[in-house]
Amino acid sequence: MEIIDGNAIAASIIAELKEKVAARPAGTEPPCIAFIRVGDDPASVSYVNKKNKTAAEIGMATRLTLLPEDVSEDKLNAAIDELNADPAVHGILIQAPLPRHLDEVRAFRRIAPEKDVDGLGTMNLGKIAQDDDSGFVCCTPAGIMELLRRSGVTLSGKHVVVVGRSLLVGKPVALLALQKREHANATVTVCHSRTADLAAITRQADVLIAAIGIPEFIKADMVKPGAVVIDVGINRVADPTRKRGYRLVGDVDFPAVSPLASKITPVPGGVGPMTVAMLMRNTFKAWERVGR
Amino acid sequence: MEIIDGNAIAASIIAELKEKVAARPAGTEPPCIAFIRVGDDPASVSYVNKKNKTAAEIGMATRLTLLPEDVSEDKLNAAIDELNADPAVHGILIQAPLPRHLDEVRAFRRIAPEKDVDGLGTMNLGKIAQDDDSGFVCCTPAGIMELLRRSGVTLSGKHVVVVGRSLLVGKPVALLALQKREHANATVTVCHSRTADLAAITRQADVLIAAIGIPEFIKADMVKPGAVVIDVGINRVADPTRKRGYRLVGDVDFPAVSPLASKITPVPGGVGPMTVAMLMRNTFKAWERVGR
Repeated sequence: MEIIDGNAIAASIIAELKEKVAARPAGTEPPCIAFIRVGDDPASVSYVNKKNKTAAEIGMATRLTLLPEDVSEDKLNAAIDELNADPAVHGILIQAPLPRHLDEVRAFRRIAPEKDVDGLGTMNLGKIAQDDDSGFVCCTPAGIMELLRRSGVTLSGKHVVVVGRSLLVGKPVALLALQKREHANATVTVCHSRTADLAAITRQADVLIAAIGIPEFIKADMVKPGAVVIDVGINRVADPTRKRGYRLVGDVDFPAVSPLASKITPVPGGVGPMTVAMLMRNTFKAWERVGR
Repeated sequence: MEIIDGNAIAASIIAELKEKVAARPAGTEPPCIAFIRVGDDPASVSYVNKKNKTAAEIGMATRLTLLPEDVSEDKLNAAIDELNADPAVHGILIQAPLPRHLDEVRAFRRIAPEKDVDGLGTMNLGKIAQDDDSGFVCCTPAGIMELLRRSGVTLSGKHVVVVGRSLLVGKPVALLALQKREHANATVTVCHSRTADLAAITRQADVLIAAIGIPEFIKADMVKPGAVVIDVGINRVADPTRKRGYRLVGDVDFPAVSPLASKITPVPGGVGPMTVAMLMRNTFKAWERVGR
């Protein structure tokens, strides 16, 4: 069994980007990513800080728009429109989740497709279905595909089973694995909470992608020996032995499943860091595209 | 075994639309659909004629733009732009396939999303992934879902297996069956030419959707007894006993598979007529939306 080291793979992507940004012509502006954060949810604060820090480390410029928890849709739209119109901004990310009174899908769609580096706008999602790589692939699915590629996992003809049908992970990663291109061409099954006899399906997976958001949901009897297991979950479970009172676990019961798997991602340190690296790569692509 | 009568279901949808169009306020214009056909491929001529005839039967206005086989992308774009800008036109359909020198995905994308009644533009495809029904669902997948619904087939928790990963059928119907909504909520597998041991997967299907474009590809040993079988294929096979020299067969070996199935669509007379009916329904929706 091999542990797929997402931290190391992400670090090498970030190092590559840093080099490329540093190598830009003297006197030109670096890529600039703008974050919009609504409210002060601690997880959102921490995610935006992490992304901001990584961007700075690469040498990118960053902007941060903070909006109050009760901001109106009109005001959120105005903030998006302003960044859309600003030629100094190359990428825009709205940190999810938004408060309940705001419609995430509409907010993501409002970002100009050429600045939608989070890849959750309708146009960029549609491009995935069209096997069209002129857009931005949403970051977590892109990170999963990159982890598989850099770990030498070939998907062609293999059975990929995705547990979870979210817009952020399950559906786009299914479409990516299905594309007619090298490093894809998989047979793909998407299952979820309504699936009858889930274990019978997950046990068929050559590559199992768990993105259902339930701590340690995938048990040993749901995994075929030798499968590659990608754990997308990041769940906090109470743990009084830790100073902060919780620990992070994935959607996979790692101690039980890892002995069975040929390769597996840990939580933390698997898919998570790749999501940030893919966001940076998309921002770099957006910047390259406008010709600096 | 029950044969799902696509002709009858399509006819009832068309009759409903005809009534609704006739009931519009006196002096107002009916829905108008514009067809763009490039070249004189006999199948394309026949499809456009059929759609045009059905639109006329419903009381819709129609337009036809004919472009030569060797038309440039610029001229095609100009034709699309003109129809996009014309407030009298509610829906636009570019008949596929386009000649090889033209990029279909780019052409579909150029149609204004609010007139893209064929639903193959990037924005409307992305909306399917987002479970957002404000757009237009592409016609063949919409027709399949409607056939299943009107035949009393519930998908929730069932295993839907789609054979074929095309942009026109396989991928969008998979996304539709996966949506979190009544008449969907299925577990979905998409398999295709690269799939290892295809029969082992198709035999798991509670609902099998064949859209691979190979005559009579699905044989009896690939189908679970009691499955619902939807045949999307329309293939011409040589038949000297017919006056026109060919007959139409689906992707399913109907004589062998139909005794096993609980319900099955015939070819012709199954999915085909539904595609046209859904195009008409989308055009009606586009017209309603602009407030006549």
